[in-house]
Amino acid sequence: MVHYGDRKQEMITRLKKIEGQVRGVQKMVEDGRYCVDILVQIAAIRSAINKVGLTLLESHTKGCVTKAIHEDHGDEAIDELMEVMNKFIK
Amino acid sequence: MVHYGDRKQEMITRLKKIEGQVRGVQKMVEDGRYCVDILVQIAAIRSAINKVGLTLLESHTKGCVTKAIHEDHGDEAIDELMEVMNKFIK
Amino acid sequence: MVHYGDRKQEMITRLKKIEGQVRGVQKMVEDGRYCVDILVQIAAIRSAINKVGLTLLESHTKGCVTKAIHEDHGDEAIDELMEVMNKFIK
Amino acid sequence: MVHYGDRKQEMITRLKKIEGQVRGVQKMVEDGRYCVDILVQIAAIRSAINKVGLTLLESHTKGCVTKAIHEDHGDEAIDELMEVMNKFIK
Repeated sequence: MVHYGDRKQEMITRLKKIEGQVRGVQKMVEDGRYCVDILVQIAAIRSAINKVGLTLLESHTKGCVTKAIHEDHGDEAIDELMEVMNKFIK
Repeated sequence: MVHYGDRKQEMITRLKKIEGQVRGVQKMVEDGRYCVDILVQIAAIRSAINKVGLTLLESHTKGCVTKAIHEDHGDEAIDELMEVMNKFIK
Repeated sequence: MVHYGDRKQEMITRLKKIEGQVRGVQKMVEDGRYCVDILVQIAAIRSAINKVGLTLLESHTKGCVTKAIHEDHGDEAIDELMEVMNKFIK
Repeated sequence: MVHYGDRKQEMITRLKKIEGQVRGVQKMVEDGRYCVDILVQIAAIRSAINKVGLTLLESHTKGCVTKAIHEDHGDEAIDELMEVMNKFIK
């Protein structure tokens, strides 16, 4: 079972876009483009990565965590969820 | 003049690694891997992107901003720097 | 019903500490203390606020969200949760 | 010399507001208010703290760092600045 199933294609599309953005920044660095223009692009990648993370957090909570709660081992699933959220909220 | 010149290769290497990480996450999603494992990887990419951002912020401040300050138009350069930092510190 | 009930006292204690830290920073500014020393304190407050946020997110998920899932209106509760997480993960 | 001198009053005003917000959240917790409403307030405090941080970063860069650059020990000042920015960009 893939809990992010219905958003799988959306996530792959976004990740492909991010991959392109990362390559774009590589090219900007190679071409010696102005630092601030590159920083704006890096901030955009950061934002896009956060959005993919949030999408997956949502799918995970609606899927795996909800299932775990119905099967009465919700607290373990939530502890795991919090551990990973910890890496995003610093 | 490229102010991040001496860190150019380091940044390209890091960006290539990030590109590989993003592709790795795409594959994880395609393979239907467990959400939390993917989220851990996404958090790692976020961290790596932030580090590239910080490296570039440093080079920019030591290069372009320092030059602007010596040429007495430092405040404009700092305003521009702050505007981009705003995108990272939210 | 208070879902963060068992962590209520812990949260109040932490918030009181944060209040003291904020007052401490006010005093540092009034005293004209060195910017970087103040920034280190501000970063510590930011960290402490994030931790209170994470504690509450956890209590909320283990309490209200779990209850909503058991009562079969989990998705609305998760949508609301994601909306607020969005404010932390930027 | 206080480099954030001209923004001192602005920073104190903002910090006093943040102190009030933190006290407000304490009261919300004491009153057993709904978690998500509290989380929204905590996110607002986080945002306000970040803004004070950015204001101080700007004053510091326009003041102390600029001065250090003019006196030819800019790189040390920038290294110190980056170390503290590291605490905000994670």
